[in-house]
Amino acid sequence: MHAFRGALALLRWDAAVMMPRGSAEVRAEQLAALESELHALLTAPKITRLLERARAGSESLEDWQQANLREMQRQRDHAIAVPVSLISRLTKAAALAESQWLAARRDNDFSIFAPHLQGLLQLVRDKAALLGQALSLSPYDALMDEYGAGFGTADMDALFRSLGRRLPKMIGAALQAQGDTPLPALSGRFPASRQRALVVEVMKSIGFPFDRGRLDESEHPFTEGVAGDIRVTTRFDAADPFNALLGALHETGHAMYDLGMPQAWRDQPVGRDRGMALEESQSLLLEMIVGRSRPFVSWLQPLLVKHFGVQGPEWEVDAVLQRLTRVRRGLIRVDADELSYPLHVLHRYELEKKLIDGQLAVRDLQEAWDSGMRQHFGLRPANLTEGCLQDVHWALGLFGYFPSYALGGVIAAQLWESLCTQVPDVDAQIARGEFAGVMSWLRDRVHSQGARLPVKDLVRTATGQPLGATALLRHLERKYGAVSS
Amino acid sequence: MHAFRGALALLRWDAAVMMPRGSAEVRAEQLAALESELHALLTAPKITRLLERARAGSESLEDWQQANLREMQRQRDHAIAVPVSLISRLTKAAALAESQWLAARRDNDFSIFAPHLQGLLQLVRDKAALLGQALSLSPYDALMDEYGAGFGTADMDALFRSLGRRLPKMIGAALQAQGDTPLPALSGRFPASRQRALVVEVMKSIGFPFDRGRLDESEHPFTEGVAGDIRVTTRFDAADPFNALLGALHETGHAMYDLGMPQAWRDQPVGRDRGMALEESQSLLLEMIVGRSRPFVSWLQPLLVKHFGVQGPEWEVDAVLQRLTRVRRGLIRVDADELSYPLHVLHRYELEKKLIDGQLAVRDLQEAWDSGMRQHFGLRPANLTEGCLQDVHWALGLFGYFPSYALGGVIAAQLWESLCTQVPDVDAQIARGEFAGVMSWLRDRVHSQGARLPVKDLVRTATGQPLGATALLRHLERKYGAVSS
Repeated sequence: MHAFRGALALLRWDAAVMMPRGSAEVRAEQLAALESELHALLTAPKITRLLERARAGSESLEDWQQANLREMQRQRDHAIAVPVSLISRLTKAAALAESQWLAARRDNDFSIFAPHLQGLLQLVRDKAALLGQALSLSPYDALMDEYGAGFGTADMDALFRSLGRRLPKMIGAALQAQGDTPLPALSGRFPASRQRALVVEVMKSIGFPFDRGRLDESEHPFTEGVAGDIRVTTRFDAADPFNALLGALHETGHAMYDLGMPQAWRDQPVGRDRGMALEESQSLLLEMIVGRSRPFVSWLQPLLVKHFGVQGPEWEVDAVLQRLTRVRRGLIRVDADELSYPLHVLHRYELEKKLIDGQLAVRDLQEAWDSGMRQHFGLRPANLTEGCLQDVHWALGLFGYFPSYALGGVIAAQLWESLCTQVPDVDAQIARGEFAGVMSWLRDRVHSQGARLPVKDLVRTATGQPLGATALLRHLERKYGAVSS
Repeated sequence: MHAFRGALALLRWDAAVMMPRGSAEVRAEQLAALESELHALLTAPKITRLLERARAGSESLEDWQQANLREMQRQRDHAIAVPVSLISRLTKAAALAESQWLAARRDNDFSIFAPHLQGLLQLVRDKAALLGQALSLSPYDALMDEYGAGFGTADMDALFRSLGRRLPKMIGAALQAQGDTPLPALSGRFPASRQRALVVEVMKSIGFPFDRGRLDESEHPFTEGVAGDIRVTTRFDAADPFNALLGALHETGHAMYDLGMPQAWRDQPVGRDRGMALEESQSLLLEMIVGRSRPFVSWLQPLLVKHFGVQGPEWEVDAVLQRLTRVRRGLIRVDADELSYPLHVLHRYELEKKLIDGQLAVRDLQEAWDSGMRQHFGLRPANLTEGCLQDVHWALGLFGYFPSYALGGVIAAQLWESLCTQVPDVDAQIARGEFAGVMSWLRDRVHSQGARLPVKDLVRTATGQPLGATALLRHLERKYGAVSS
């Protein structure tokens, strides 16, 4: 199954990076065949019998073996709870909904997408109900459990209460302190080949192993693969080299996590990542916390000069840092700054919970979206592409996924706070372009733990503190309070 | 299984074209997992029962359905005849033998490779014996049957008798007529990007669909994929643009064959190619017969000028044609001209038959190789890399494969002769860069037949003549007789 997953990852990578356009149908067939075979392997009666036997003798197992058995059981429980026929209907409905999502964006007409989302949502709700029954969780919690084991709405609600109380004021203060002067335009030329060279140099410094990994270009940055063959993409914007760099930092965070999995358990369930929330914590830590810090920018600045030959006031360390920490009230999640980002996620979380439990009908989604944006940001989308159709997740049937983004930010800040106390000269290290201190701390405390512990336990063990929003709030206060002072 | 094969093809393509060097072990695991799952699917008891039931009611099946059932049975018979444990031992022994083959070439020391070839050969002989029992064939015929269904040593011996009698004299005459004047060196610069542009233009003219296929670079040219996603590679030699072009023509021949499989049977056993001999006939027809013909060169010549800006006497049509049809007595199979090539294959065929039936011991292989080269070409290899270690096939356990190369050349010439009588203005078409006439004839008579008929029947149906060497001899006589006159 480990080898199958690696093969599937390569087929997906190739589809996004290399595949000729006309081959999508053939590839979909291949993915479906491998996925259904994987599902068949996981749900075979033999596995059930073997798991029962292993459980009966589990007292004699060591800690890691116990955790491995739990993960096997967990994967099988998830897989067996939902019949293959439902999965296959979901896959087809999602493929159709995605194409209609594109059409509705193009024509700015929600009614094109709504019936398809309606049908897809019903299937997701069926799946959530079945999963919930099997795992003794509420339907939405069951969906969340797929992405961040052991984390549910109770936890998420508490986190969002803390964040929702503080962030709007912090945003207001930061905006005021920042003033209205727009950032100067970036002078210089940034050909893709030079951006690539810069990104490769940065990734190498962080420790990305180019002998067991690649960097390529794709429409949306992503990471695919297994520890022995990990593939990262970014995109090159000819007008703005920070786009590719921050995208690559984000994906390198994912890659370093995947590369740091416990070698001894590399092909076992416990040797995999601990879900999307932890994944996002690793990507956001590099992209948001390290990549937008003064030490990083002071190391980066000479590299910008070297690779692009740029000069001028907008290329000074202060100016670059200002650009990377600029706060703006905006409508688009993926363009949001560090302060606003959690509110975008909160907004989606509120809506999708209601969609799953039936409190919100699809026909009312657009209105509910716009009203939430008014409430959180005081803004009104001018069209669906900057409104409720900006993200593809729901069109793909991915409900319960968004919380991982906010949770990832929370965990990243909490890990970082702990790391800073234990690696006291971390700023000086980063300013010299040395990332071994950061990476070895993360490897010890997070990466090498694989899926041994639930998210909450892993964070508590790594940091000595229960998982909570205070570290993120302290981090943001320090960073954006400093900007405003 | 069709989807699995497509996935395996992509994993192999990626390994040769994209994969980071350090990921070979991970990839080997993935390939092994998918291959063993494919084998398990094919040999499942359920398949045996279903095949029995289908055979019982096969009288009511139509022609294509009958052929499809025969192919299912054939694939399963091949798969079930050899135990998985032997296949897996073979795979491991081949991986080891290949690395020792490299080492023996590097150190020019046959004794490094010999014990590994010895072990591997024993496993291949075990496999051949089991396959032979199951298929009622001699061991070597059983191995050949994997690559060209229904073709055995009796056919091959007859072909080689005809060729062996005539070719040495033809080579002597051609060499004498050619004279000793060496070809002038090629003036001009041939950057890979321009070679690529030329190759793409030629491939497009032939009909290669770049929306469902790719051209990339790899160490050895190859073709991988399925009809909906076919991937061709070549290599770019900065000193000689014909290398990449002829390599790409060869692979485009394979690709056009794969693309021309019967659509209605695209995911069925009968909808696959008819083995390596037919595959090689399609690649050699483009590379050797079309690509080295006067009409083709007269179309190509202005493209060479356009892409490389070349000029001078060595770029005239006559000079280019002379270069592409130059006959040389040489030691290396893959560099051999059209006249000598079959003798290189005959040489290997004689040796590997004896290795399989035990008449030749591995320890005597080097001597037997050198003695055969003296006999066929009057030449003596100076080292193992131009001697018995020049090809990787045996190190990979591929015995019974070489005949496909010679058989491919024979079939190509026979198809071509028939095509020329039925498409009378084919030369004029090619001289205008129009390949639709050639391709639609091949598609009708060969490609769209899939695996419906055994090789011999397919060739007889396509050409109206029994498969034989006379067309190839006529073709070579016309072409190299003309050179000599």
